[in-house]
Amino acid sequence: MQTNKLEKQIAFIKEIDKVKYILRQSTLFNSDRRENDAEHSWHLAVMAIVLAEYSDKPIDLLKVLKMVLIHDIVEIDAGDTFIYSTTKDHDNTEEELAAAKRIFGILPAEQAEELIEIWKEFEAAETDEAKFAKSLDRFEPLLQSVSNKGGTWVEHDVPYHKVYDVNKAIKNGSTTLWNYAENLLNESVEKGFLKK
Amino acid sequence: MQTNKLEKQIAFIKEIDKVKYILRQSTLFNSDRRENDAEHSWHLAVMAIVLAEYSDKPIDLLKVLKMVLIHDIVEIDAGDTFIYSTTKDHDNTEEELAAAKRIFGILPAEQAEELIEIWKEFEAAETDEAKFAKSLDRFEPLLQSVSNKGGTWVEHDVPYHKVYDVNKAIKNGSTTLWNYAENLLNESVEKGFLKK
Repeated sequence: MQTNKLEKQIAFIKEIDKVKYILRQSTLFNSDRRENDAEHSWHLAVMAIVLAEYSDKPIDLLKVLKMVLIHDIVEIDAGDTFIYSTTKDHDNTEEELAAAKRIFGILPAEQAEELIEIWKEFEAAETDEAKFAKSLDRFEPLLQSVSNKGGTWVEHDVPYHKVYDVNKAIKNGSTTLWNYAENLLNESVEKGFLKK
Repeated sequence: MQTNKLEKQIAFIKEIDKVKYILRQSTLFNSDRRENDAEHSWHLAVMAIVLAEYSDKPIDLLKVLKMVLIHDIVEIDAGDTFIYSTTKDHDNTEEELAAAKRIFGILPAEQAEELIEIWKEFEAAETDEAKFAKSLDRFEPLLQSVSNKGGTWVEHDVPYHKVYDVNKAIKNGSTTLWNYAENLLNESVEKGFLKK
């Protein structure tokens, strides 16, 4: 039984290697090399450790780390959807739920259930941990875009009000990070990277 | 003061983006594409979550996650050293310590100190958390090599006894994972991926 359980866990560990091939629209800092989901998830995890104090509410850091580390695994099946896409919903799709069930379902039942619940909690963005995790998930690509003189905003001609609407989710988790982000957006307008 | 503190943390977050450019010798599963340190660290973190039950000793999972997430940041300055290198020490070098001080030193003092201590604890491999984190750090490339019909072992002509010596560190953290790993090594010998 023990071996069978471990075999399932190893199968999951192999399966999620595919996350390293999923390219996001966002590029690395000061770079035009697109970031993959594994790199993105790692960066969010370190950001969670370093920026935890800025969550408006007390958080369970371990749960936030689990959320950001696994949040993009569903994209193995569902693919990455550009946050500013005008043709496809970004989150909470049936496709993503089916992906969560298949991929986490490779694990032993109890563990699968735990990770599916954590993924759903992140997606629902209602708990304090999920709100903070979502703040980080917005904050990293915003920092990247600013470092790249507008990055995906310029590339896809995304106007200020859309960038603002997507990123104001940062405020739900952290007033401090949102104030910082809002300043960056205003500076980006001044520098011409973002069009009002 | 708050702003100044956050500026330091943002500067650190930008600096560690460089981890995504550091290529390891190991390649992804069933692939000849080399893995970078960010991808590797992410994979170890998810493995820590999924395999925590196999630590021989009770562990603080949050500390293990911090360890595996930051353990390779020093390689921004010190570079990656192949675990089977015959010309260069892998760990605990002066160069790595200087790197830790410079890079974590970008953070506010208290946080810098905390992360340097966690990195040192990982390197020393004496606490239960560090032993388990080290087990994972060996176990992932072992799984990759097996999936790649010997991978770096074949590429660099590394004999069985060297692979065994490096990987037996897995046993210090987890008897279960070591038993699994030892079976894989024996199978690799049978299949001719490893030469005795």
